[in-house]
Amino acid sequence: MNKKLILVRHGQSEWNKLNLFTGWKDVDLSEQGKQEAFEAGKAMIQYGVKPQICFTSYLKRAIKTLNIALDAMDLDYLPVYKSWRLNEKHYGQLQGLNKKETAEKYGEEQVLKWRRVFDCQPPALEENDERSPLVDERYKDVDKKDLPLTESLKDCIARCMPYFNQTVLPAFKNHDTVLIAAHGNSLRGIVMNLKKMSEEEIIKFNIPTGIPYVFTFDENMNLIKDEFLADEQTVKKLMDAVANQGKK
Amino acid sequence: MNKKLILVRHGQSEWNKLNLFTGWKDVDLSEQGKQEAFEAGKAMIQYGVKPQICFTSYLKRAIKTLNIALDAMDLDYLPVYKSWRLNEKHYGQLQGLNKKETAEKYGEEQVLKWRRVFDCQPPALEENDERSPLVDERYKDVDKKDLPLTESLKDCIARCMPYFNQTVLPAFKNHDTVLIAAHGNSLRGIVMNLKKMSEEEIIKFNIPTGIPYVFTFDENMNLIKDEFLADEQTVKKLMDAVANQGKK
Repeated sequence: MNKKLILVRHGQSEWNKLNLFTGWKDVDLSEQGKQEAFEAGKAMIQYGVKPQICFTSYLKRAIKTLNIALDAMDLDYLPVYKSWRLNEKHYGQLQGLNKKETAEKYGEEQVLKWRRVFDCQPPALEENDERSPLVDERYKDVDKKDLPLTESLKDCIARCMPYFNQTVLPAFKNHDTVLIAAHGNSLRGIVMNLKKMSEEEIIKFNIPTGIPYVFTFDENMNLIKDEFLADEQTVKKLMDAVANQGKK
Repeated sequence: MNKKLILVRHGQSEWNKLNLFTGWKDVDLSEQGKQEAFEAGKAMIQYGVKPQICFTSYLKRAIKTLNIALDAMDLDYLPVYKSWRLNEKHYGQLQGLNKKETAEKYGEEQVLKWRRVFDCQPPALEENDERSPLVDERYKDVDKKDLPLTESLKDCIARCMPYFNQTVLPAFKNHDTVLIAAHGNSLRGIVMNLKKMSEEEIIKFNIPTGIPYVFTFDENMNLIKDEFLADEQTVKKLMDAVANQGKK
């Protein structure tokens, strides 16, 4: 049986709905987001892709997407591992700001740079800002030097990939099908590496929410196929929706 | 800080509501059961008891009780470990039968024996019965000789305790507060051992659903206190409700 990696980007959160920069802020899924998670589970059943072990971030919008999708598949009992390294890109001082207002204040170009230039960091938080992971109990066991106060996409990918390489990939030794439920930018790191994309390519690549994205490997773990578990039109519509966020 | 173990028995399931023998059948929580799970989380906040690591069974009514309680506490990110050894007692051929009808057919006394005599097993399933764990994919990695076709309370406790002793207790090395979300009979095993109860005592001891039951230990892991996180009247009402199931 070919090994498969399934990526699921969480559905709409309460802050996506309000068009706020979210990053590491632990906001809940909206009702629509919960429905998207359920549909993700149903799509995996429909396409006959059945995970055996799961990974997710420390953020509840990804964790609940995973829990709901597993429940839709009647696979609640699967092992689930959570890591802060799969968290969304940290948006620094932008966290909590409205994307449209930020675009009006700083200009659409600057906002797109913060969102879409590979190595451009938004302004960093102060260490003792209430939004800082350095003062957040859930990260108390993480080495302080590893915790970000802001991140470019490059930074986000750099802290995500060690977990993917050292913890997720080894799971294929004992499992055929591995599921990761995470975020737009942490998943970008994985896609970039698996598809050997350039910085330019990954920036333009918008992973649709709630659509399982399946990578199939040969026996030597060479990628032979990648596909979304949805029809083309649905995928295109969702990719465009993500790309258009943060425009005035 | 004193070490604490929190036990939570799952709330009402769809089959509890219908008064059916459930055992290893993987039925969902009812709406009332979800509410009980939420209240369990709120009670832990109210009493200032904060878990750091969690264990649960392979059955979704326990897993979802845990997920909902963690979400109520904003602790979705905590590590969760699932084991079939924390499953409910296996009810053999009784699984799926109505408790009242079974009492009418076999007599209330026989049903109370199957439910409440320490070493009395209900009639066993055939190995290839569709309800048998031997043909259930989720148990495929478990040694077949360990999987039950029926269980007495004694059998249930005997397969639960190795997991408690070898996996749950060692978690106290790195954590102060450990949470187990499980089932009436698997939790009975843990209570019996911690409180050094006799067979007679544990049979009569009905753990209320959805009320966190907290064991506090001294620095040598000697039990110094056990208490329910609820007022006495609520605890008594819930204990009586469980005790009265299966009466005509």
